[in-house]
Amino acid sequence: MNNRIRREDLKDKIMSAEDAALLIKDGMTMATSGFTPSGYPKAVPLALAKRAEGGEKIEITVMCGASVGDELDGSLSKAGVMTRRYPYQTNESIRNAINQGNIYYQDMHLSHVSQYMDYGFFGKIDVALVEALAITEEGCIIPTTSVGLTPQAIKNADMVIVEINTSQPLELEGIHDIYMTEKPPHRKPIPIIRPGDRIGTTFMPCAPEKIAAIVVTDITDKVRPLGPIDEPSRKISGHIIDFLKHEVKMGRLPQNLLPLQSGVGSVANAVLGGLVHSDFENLTCYTEVIQDSMLDLIDAGKITIASSTALTPSEEGLKRLYENMSHYAKYCILRPMEISNNPEVIRRLGVIAMNTAIEVDIYGHVNSTNIMGSRMMNGIGGSGDFTRNAYFSIFTTVSTAKNGDISSIVPKVSHVDHTEHDVTVIVTEQGLADLRKTSPRERARKIIQNCAHPSYRDMLMDYLKEAEKGKFKHQPHSIKEALSWHARFLETGSMKVWKKNQDIGSSLNKKKLALSNT
Amino acid sequence: MNNRIRREDLKDKIMSAEDAALLIKDGMTMATSGFTPSGYPKAVPLALAKRAEGGEKIEITVMCGASVGDELDGSLSKAGVMTRRYPYQTNESIRNAINQGNIYYQDMHLSHVSQYMDYGFFGKIDVALVEALAITEEGCIIPTTSVGLTPQAIKNADMVIVEINTSQPLELEGIHDIYMTEKPPHRKPIPIIRPGDRIGTTFMPCAPEKIAAIVVTDITDKVRPLGPIDEPSRKISGHIIDFLKHEVKMGRLPQNLLPLQSGVGSVANAVLGGLVHSDFENLTCYTEVIQDSMLDLIDAGKITIASSTALTPSEEGLKRLYENMSHYAKYCILRPMEISNNPEVIRRLGVIAMNTAIEVDIYGHVNSTNIMGSRMMNGIGGSGDFTRNAYFSIFTTVSTAKNGDISSIVPKVSHVDHTEHDVTVIVTEQGLADLRKTSPRERARKIIQNCAHPSYRDMLMDYLKEAEKGKFKHQPHSIKEALSWHARFLETGSMKVWKKNQDIGSSLNKKKLALSNT
Repeated sequence: MNNRIRREDLKDKIMSAEDAALLIKDGMTMATSGFTPSGYPKAVPLALAKRAEGGEKIEITVMCGASVGDELDGSLSKAGVMTRRYPYQTNESIRNAINQGNIYYQDMHLSHVSQYMDYGFFGKIDVALVEALAITEEGCIIPTTSVGLTPQAIKNADMVIVEINTSQPLELEGIHDIYMTEKPPHRKPIPIIRPGDRIGTTFMPCAPEKIAAIVVTDITDKVRPLGPIDEPSRKISGHIIDFLKHEVKMGRLPQNLLPLQSGVGSVANAVLGGLVHSDFENLTCYTEVIQDSMLDLIDAGKITIASSTALTPSEEGLKRLYENMSHYAKYCILRPMEISNNPEVIRRLGVIAMNTAIEVDIYGHVNSTNIMGSRMMNGIGGSGDFTRNAYFSIFTTVSTAKNGDISSIVPKVSHVDHTEHDVTVIVTEQGLADLRKTSPRERARKIIQNCAHPSYRDMLMDYLKEAEKGKFKHQPHSIKEALSWHARFLETGSMKVWKKNQDIGSSLNKKKLALSNT
Repeated sequence: MNNRIRREDLKDKIMSAEDAALLIKDGMTMATSGFTPSGYPKAVPLALAKRAEGGEKIEITVMCGASVGDELDGSLSKAGVMTRRYPYQTNESIRNAINQGNIYYQDMHLSHVSQYMDYGFFGKIDVALVEALAITEEGCIIPTTSVGLTPQAIKNADMVIVEINTSQPLELEGIHDIYMTEKPPHRKPIPIIRPGDRIGTTFMPCAPEKIAAIVVTDITDKVRPLGPIDEPSRKISGHIIDFLKHEVKMGRLPQNLLPLQSGVGSVANAVLGGLVHSDFENLTCYTEVIQDSMLDLIDAGKITIASSTALTPSEEGLKRLYENMSHYAKYCILRPMEISNNPEVIRRLGVIAMNTAIEVDIYGHVNSTNIMGSRMMNGIGGSGDFTRNAYFSIFTTVSTAKNGDISSIVPKVSHVDHTEHDVTVIVTEQGLADLRKTSPRERARKIIQNCAHPSYRDMLMDYLKEAEKGKFKHQPHSIKEALSWHARFLETGSMKVWKKNQDIGSSLNKKKLALSNT
């Protein structure tokens, strides 16, 4: 424990998770460590949930870096402790509670969160609950597998509860680079000019007297599996690599490209994975999360540095990371999400942003969050931070979903997270549409012809041509039909138009099946 | 002329506008000076239009900083010379051509334009056509009443045509601060930490051998009138000032606020104008344009510095400016639009962004561009650059339009330019909705109750409650009804629901009237 709690007087603060959880009271606002199921507190949330399950009324607001693991997001939402949540989530239990109207959720750009906390926009932060690798002699806190909003949580909270997690290897020490911005009007330029620049400390400042409790635990990060790299993902990755090669050839990109960003999840993992066998060398990443394919790129000698705010491996990847931590640590930097996702730095570096869409419309608007306009999936996460400020902003999606009953290319998206002004390239397994220098109607033809699934192309062209008969031809819409594809899906279980003589029984079954899958 | 062309050998390049226009050929891409009807080239576009009117085929792509005056946007669009236009416009003739499908228009974030030119995303820039105050001994070019994208136009173009405009007073010299960023991976931090910081030169670099022609003209900027400050604008301004006072009181803003940005046009002018009689002192502006009310603020001793990319006065304001140029110049800086609108600087300074919306929906999405989803008004301009990166992003709109037949608050906007993730505050003459810390359904109630016109409040609440009966309650929409208000307006001339026994004749007349006004 001397390695983990290096300041003697703080050892008096060690207590059980149950005792620490008693410090968290009904009505409080709690900000925690964690970004993806990495580096989030585990023991105290479980103890807190148990109290609520025992009948005590505890309703709190919870802010984390992004989504976190089930011990926090799952247990607190199931127990009814979490009544309000910012700024992102992926946990099934929370998602259901949000969609049932039982958790108030504000879906935010991740780069906004830490500064809004500093500005006082969230009100008083009562408690920071933080997983730590160790506490230094000065009482400063060393994060574990993610940084997220933790530095600002510690800075702004009235008290800090620390979970020392002994399952996190001490070799993680030194991987972090903690830098916090001042509030305006005192803010200075963030001095990162290369993805690998270290500008801060390896620990998060903390006044020792703010530490109210220390809990020792060894519960591991509940990392999520990554889907296998399937054929559509491989094709998407191939289209992107061809595009990047072309841009290099045209002199619009350096030979080693520009820093890469790739979103969270299996498709994003596959997209980066495709680079392992490409000719590109000396690549860099300035991104949000380091997934398994980044380890492959490091092993293949393709990557010189990967900057992010979290290690987000699969279970296999985590094992690989832990077994070779000092090796991988040489290539990785973990920063606060205010810095990993900062518009200033992303624009300066000229990041190539690659994010996944739920659906895209013919004019290049992207829905990343609300299925059929209302059903929250996860949230916008960092996709807006990267997209708006990127050198290229690339969105990927498989051209259909639900066995072909949903077209991911629609006349008008049912919710807009990224506007036509923000999107450079759309890619599906069918092909790639480069939207630079295009008016909306040119864009529509490119997207339909290059990206839509063949079974929807004619329907999309019919919509476009019908809309073009209207009076206003800049971005033609038939306002009555614009969302009709979504309405049809909700009614019939398919965006396809059914023929009149179609068997009603099978249509209803189809509908049932589709809705049960939704 | 020695004052205006200070390099002797360049005097050989003086020629008529007609001769200079001959350098511009069919198929070319032309980037020009100008931002709002200020500092744009005038004589050469008029000569070019005349050639086309005489039957010559000249079709070119035109890029300006934003909208420009009629001599350029009007004459080239009327003559059919302009077939493609980036990134913003306000001229009636272009707007009609865009909406008729005769000009390809890409509506872009203004901060993206200069860098995309540098990146080569627009292809080769054949000619830069630039209004100048003077040319220095080194051949460098001093801008006039705006900067816009001119420095990058000169840098990237194969040849430069200069219009020396003798109607622009020489006292403008020194007001400009020209700084250009490098391309990634060589880009450095932009060293502005206060709105008044000067970081560049007072002229735009230009290799003298690139100057292909110099035309001398005295055609004045065709500035636009500003509407009188009416009662709704006064109320909107009042709500904003109350909000800002409250934020100061809560310790979330300094006494002298943070740098202000206010959009273009009469409402934006009125919003700033309201500050003249407020208690605020030592204000600063980091904004896009300097309109008449900024002169009032300077005269009232309220403003210490106003940074922008253009002087955009009314005819009266221009007179006032010209008569006291050396006085006003002490308070004003004109920067390239890449800097005036730069996300890095806007976020660092913590700008308070105030922009106008065409319509806003109950969940806080904003339409700034496309009326009824398809009809291009002007474009997004810089509103996205400021909004996304602001300390507060405030959107203003009068709660109804077309004599009450359009509600500016709708169930779902017909086009999204600013998402729910980007908007902090909505203000109408009815009141103000602070959207911080709100889930979508909380937001809807605030917007409906505080901002919607009383005659539409019940209809909006009915929509919301009906939508909340659906299965997914995060951001409830009835997908079939979401755009029905727009459809109803297009059909009947009003968003209001008409009673069954209503007189058909008057309804039709009403429809006719509304459409003719559209």
